[in-house]
Amino acid sequence: MEDGRIRHTVSFTLRHPNGSPAERDFLDAARRLGGIPGVEAFDVLAEVSPKNDFRFGISMEFADQAAYDAYNQHPEHVRFVEERWRTEVADFLEIDYSAIADA
Amino acid sequence: MEDGRIRHTVSFTLRHPNGSPAERDFLDAARRLGGIPGVEAFDVLAEVSPKNDFRFGISMEFADQAAYDAYNQHPEHVRFVEERWRTEVADFLEIDYSAIADA
Repeated sequence: MEDGRIRHTVSFTLRHPNGSPAERDFLDAARRLGGIPGVEAFDVLAEVSPKNDFRFGISMEFADQAAYDAYNQHPEHVRFVEERWRTEVADFLEIDYSAIADA
Repeated sequence: MEDGRIRHTVSFTLRHPNGSPAERDFLDAARRLGGIPGVEAFDVLAEVSPKNDFRFGISMEFADQAAYDAYNQHPEHVRFVEERWRTEVADFLEIDYSAIADA
């Protein structure tokens, strides 16, 4: 990964039944986050390792911390967190990666 | 992400002091896993989110489950897990992503 670049990921499970219309609707809303300026390499994914209990993930990359900050503060992201994430997500874990500084 | 493709990631912390020669040596050994056949988009990374306690990550992609299985069984990977991972890693979490089947 290039210096300064950040891969932001969040693994999560939903309160909705597996395969339900509510689950699909949440995932569709999550996909629209990929249209926020500065978001690159965006994917809404299935978590497939049997070694944890998360069922989905969102992965995106930012060119730098400023782009990440702008995404966090973007009204569409703020609204998604307030209107969907807080009520529909049962459990989650954020993991972010960058190049190792002295690599 | 293309159908069938798998992104395998593991977040971890080491028993070694931060910035120590032992830490650097472990990370160098981990980087050599990227030479195992079938491993793509390989990176040894810093975990930079303050929302978890992991300090590093390894991320790689496989074209399909067969390539992932071959990596798991490859002697270099098996030896790395036995000789380095089991004794030098304090905590870890594996997370794997694939395309959502009905996406």
